Amino acid sequence: MCGTCGCAPEVTTVTVDLEVDLLAANDELAAANRRRFAEHGVLAVNLMSSPGSGKTTLLERTVRALAGEVPVAVLEGDQETPVDAERIRAAGARAVQINTGAGCHLDADMMARGVDALAPEPGSVLFVENVGNLVCPALFDLGEAARVVVMSVTEGADKPLKYPHMFRTADLVLINKVDLLPYVDFDVAHCLDAARRARPGVEAIEVSATRGDGMDAWYAWVRARRG
Amino acid sequence: MCGTCGCAPEVTTVTVDLEVDLLAANDELAAANRRRFAEHGVLAVNLMSSPGSGKTTLLERTVRALAGEVPVAVLEGDQETPVDAERIRAAGARAVQINTGAGCHLDADMMARGVDALAPEPGSVLFVENVGNLVCPALFDLGEAARVVVMSVTEGADKPLKYPHMFRTADLVLINKVDLLPYVDFDVAHCLDAARRARPGVEAIEVSATRGDGMDAWYAWVRARRG
Repeated sequence: MCGTCGCAPEVTTVTVDLEVDLLAANDELAAANRRRFAEHGVLAVNLMSSPGSGKTTLLERTVRALAGEVPVAVLEGDQETPVDAERIRAAGARAVQINTGAGCHLDADMMARGVDALAPEPGSVLFVENVGNLVCPALFDLGEAARVVVMSVTEGADKPLKYPHMFRTADLVLINKVDLLPYVDFDVAHCLDAARRARPGVEAIEVSATRGDGMDAWYAWVRARRG
Repeated sequence: MCGTCGCAPEVTTVTVDLEVDLLAANDELAAANRRRFAEHGVLAVNLMSSPGSGKTTLLERTVRALAGEVPVAVLEGDQETPVDAERIRAAGARAVQINTGAGCHLDADMMARGVDALAPEPGSVLFVENVGNLVCPALFDLGEAARVVVMSVTEGADKPLKYPHMFRTADLVLINKVDLLPYVDFDVAHCLDAARRARPGVEAIEVSATRGDGMDAWYAWVRARRG
């Protein structure tokens, strides 16, 4: 275990108990968040990825596309800086920035406090942009209705095998930056095969958040989740 | 604190003490690693980045370029799979894979055990490819002589501001994938300015590990560190 990260292949019993307690406490808070979202008809979607996969650009375009038909709010997680929330507000949605300092993920308590500050309207879609990290956010339930893992084609197609914990709980994999496919050595089929070894049958959509490819399918997926 | 990650903006006193103890224990082991490397004339270089920045491809090319003039050995960190160590061995260097499971970084103890298994020759260069994570590896001294942060131009140029802990201890920033600059919206000067706000005066080299741009400058940097 460590200052930023409790991970350790060889942990003591004390440490394991502490971790279990911490995750159990997080799960309780996540369940409370989930009840709150159900009561208010809020669809919470947790977006997770490596830094640089294009989550913020994807959300900017999504806000512009959906804000006319449904209230959209965004919680932005980063270690430092308010820049992502500012980008989202400029795109037309309410946004609150959560800065985690040395922290490497959002947890259910941060989610609850962020939602207090954001106060999403009943019936809205609440997107959460987690801290850019393909490892640590995987373990933390925030009370979301759906977990979306974003990958970009500039990353290695074997990422789902090397970071399987993130993919095991995914409801959707977005393969972003497909506009760059002509310039990189990335095998989409290989990547999806790897993702489905971690999470059998997981849905996937290929998108380009900058050029627009596949974004309608992503919006349709969000709309279908609203039921 | 959490199962994978000990981070929390609001931690209890008990937890803080535990974290300090853990980091202090790591620092002791790192100091022992550093003495061991000094005794054997081994130059240890710790490469850290987001997943998908191209570290393994960079190391493959580096191994091919340097292996004829100096012994090169590589420790590969990943949550799962042996594929990166296999790639490095195919490129012509000895390599040992460390799989961290749920863990999100290498620590000094893993480094020591990896070096036991790898047994780098006296006078060699030992590259460590840390787990792809721009957050957690930042806090862990492995006993390395140099810390190199790799960024790719497909990531946002503001990453050094959003993940400052990683850049604050960097000895070198490698801006990788410059062959993709014509196809992405990435301002190298803006990125370097951000990196130098986190780490004043930090050296930087622009490279393309696939096409070869700037790699000679990187090799020269490594040679100069060997002294």
